[in-house]
Amino acid sequence: MSSRIILVVLGGIKMTDRTIVALDAMGGDNAPKEMIKGAVQALEKTDAVQVLLVGKEDVIRAELAQYTYDKARIEIVNATEVIETAEPPVNAIRRKKDSSIVVGMKLVKEGQADAFVSAGSSGAVLVGGQVIVGRIKGVERPPLAPLIPTEKGVSLLVDCGANVDARPSHLVQFAKMGSIYMEHVVGIKNPKVGIVNIGAEEEKGNALVKETFPLLKGEKNINFIGSVEAREIPHGQADVIVCEAFAGNIILKLFEGVGSVLISEIKKGMMGSLRSKIGALLVKPALKKALKSFDSSEYGGAPLLGLNGLVVKTHGSSTAKEICNTIIQCVTFKEQKINEKIKESIQPE
Amino acid sequence: MSSRIILVVLGGIKMTDRTIVALDAMGGDNAPKEMIKGAVQALEKTDAVQVLLVGKEDVIRAELAQYTYDKARIEIVNATEVIETAEPPVNAIRRKKDSSIVVGMKLVKEGQADAFVSAGSSGAVLVGGQVIVGRIKGVERPPLAPLIPTEKGVSLLVDCGANVDARPSHLVQFAKMGSIYMEHVVGIKNPKVGIVNIGAEEEKGNALVKETFPLLKGEKNINFIGSVEAREIPHGQADVIVCEAFAGNIILKLFEGVGSVLISEIKKGMMGSLRSKIGALLVKPALKKALKSFDSSEYGGAPLLGLNGLVVKTHGSSTAKEICNTIIQCVTFKEQKINEKIKESIQPE
Repeated sequence: MSSRIILVVLGGIKMTDRTIVALDAMGGDNAPKEMIKGAVQALEKTDAVQVLLVGKEDVIRAELAQYTYDKARIEIVNATEVIETAEPPVNAIRRKKDSSIVVGMKLVKEGQADAFVSAGSSGAVLVGGQVIVGRIKGVERPPLAPLIPTEKGVSLLVDCGANVDARPSHLVQFAKMGSIYMEHVVGIKNPKVGIVNIGAEEEKGNALVKETFPLLKGEKNINFIGSVEAREIPHGQADVIVCEAFAGNIILKLFEGVGSVLISEIKKGMMGSLRSKIGALLVKPALKKALKSFDSSEYGGAPLLGLNGLVVKTHGSSTAKEICNTIIQCVTFKEQKINEKIKESIQPE
Repeated sequence: MSSRIILVVLGGIKMTDRTIVALDAMGGDNAPKEMIKGAVQALEKTDAVQVLLVGKEDVIRAELAQYTYDKARIEIVNATEVIETAEPPVNAIRRKKDSSIVVGMKLVKEGQADAFVSAGSSGAVLVGGQVIVGRIKGVERPPLAPLIPTEKGVSLLVDCGANVDARPSHLVQFAKMGSIYMEHVVGIKNPKVGIVNIGAEEEKGNALVKETFPLLKGEKNINFIGSVEAREIPHGQADVIVCEAFAGNIILKLFEGVGSVLISEIKKGMMGSLRSKIGALLVKPALKKALKSFDSSEYGGAPLLGLNGLVVKTHGSSTAKEICNTIIQCVTFKEQKINEKIKESIQPE
């Protein structure tokens, strides 16, 4: 008998210390194959997790049959509908009550899961997080906060797309929540917080940045280092990079875009002569390793911070590895009591 | 007797068909050496240009002494002060009346030069352009518009830093002026115009983009293709990329930042083993060529569009090559009558 059946019997009260992760088995380009493979891998890596695979039961069951795994720690939760990427998110969440995203989020809302992970529609995950799971009291806007690769390791980008046209008070909360996440999930002590700006000086910037800068400077519980120019972001100047979602989305997408074009130009260049073709063979492993350090899928999904529970969005192109990393990230999030720390930090007015 | 002396005698009326470019000999990390070298190179490349070297006469004269050049086409205009990069620009323009930037811009204002080129303080160039040279009637905000490298060639990014917190009507003018520049200076027929957005659909975006989108759609004289996500910019999806200056500055700076970090990671990776070191030697020329295609200094400086004359800002790190390319770009700008075309396109209300 699996622990979820116990949960149901006891009316939603969890009887396990394990982190329970509800995984959208139907979302993303490689679903359900890579989702299920990732779940099985996570079980092998840590004993501290249970996975609820949410989606079409028959499809999931057929896929699962290929693996040997601890049957007490994986369970299927049937959901007959799938929200497509192109669907308007608000409508989709409202109408597709039996979709994997809505069913998975309800498991978090009802306390039957600690976290929900999806590689599906970003819009639906963002809307569902706010509407179904709900915000921690006092949190004005929950930001989407991916880790981005830098020369020194990783930085957390808050917000990268959840709340356009944010206000200064939102950005201050992003800084606080981002600092907690970087310190306790990623393990960076006293993380440096910077605000994205178009110059290093305090008087530079647009209206939002100029208003937010003194507020961040006045916050005692964060390690604010001032403005960060976009040029410095890949060098890892700040651990937590605070910005409004429109700017954050540009940063995230351009990281991917510039990287992929540059790499394809280099590869094309190397195929141009016999000499460089031979050289390319010799440098291939080194090149692969360097590029891997710049591949954001290595670092798991992006949490939506400040919700009553945890919701994580992974890349649409997620493979088993990213799903596995993300599930393990959920365990750390729970064990480090991130939401309790956010509640303490964000005092409702 | 040089043509400028004729000009002075005739009270500012130019007696030459050549494009007269005033060059800030004192601005930028490599001034005056690379500025003067660049000017001499430009003279060798085209007969259609004359250069006024603006700055400390003795310093310029000593540097010029190394070169053989057509003495009728280079002249020194003395300016005893230099505006430093760190100086607050408005104050600097107001107080340093005899700085190379103020003196050079006045030459444009008074019709003694067609263009002013500077690698010096961006802020001072932007402020001086508006305050000294002045806007074309009807132009609300003159944007800074650099060319950025893409997989397909180059795209024009308007605005990359002149006007934060722009309004929809400004962005529409950016689109018009950018289209004229790309068509007639860069030679892209019927250039595709895109607006930077966080999704491809019309209903996506922040308040500014949502308001601007239908205005651009309604413009008959531009080839508007809709939203462009940041990820697509390096692929060259649009020829003219319209955005507000804060976003544009992030795009420009991140292009440089991601590129340089990625390249240094690749180089570091290649130095890791004997095998890859040998490979690195073999691929070096190909790698260099690929990276060159992604080096923005190859494409000359960024014009400030919509002024009564032409002001071009080059990189602070400009070398002779970028200065030479920029001077030639000024010739095309004048010969193609870009400002006349902008005047026709922007009808004052």
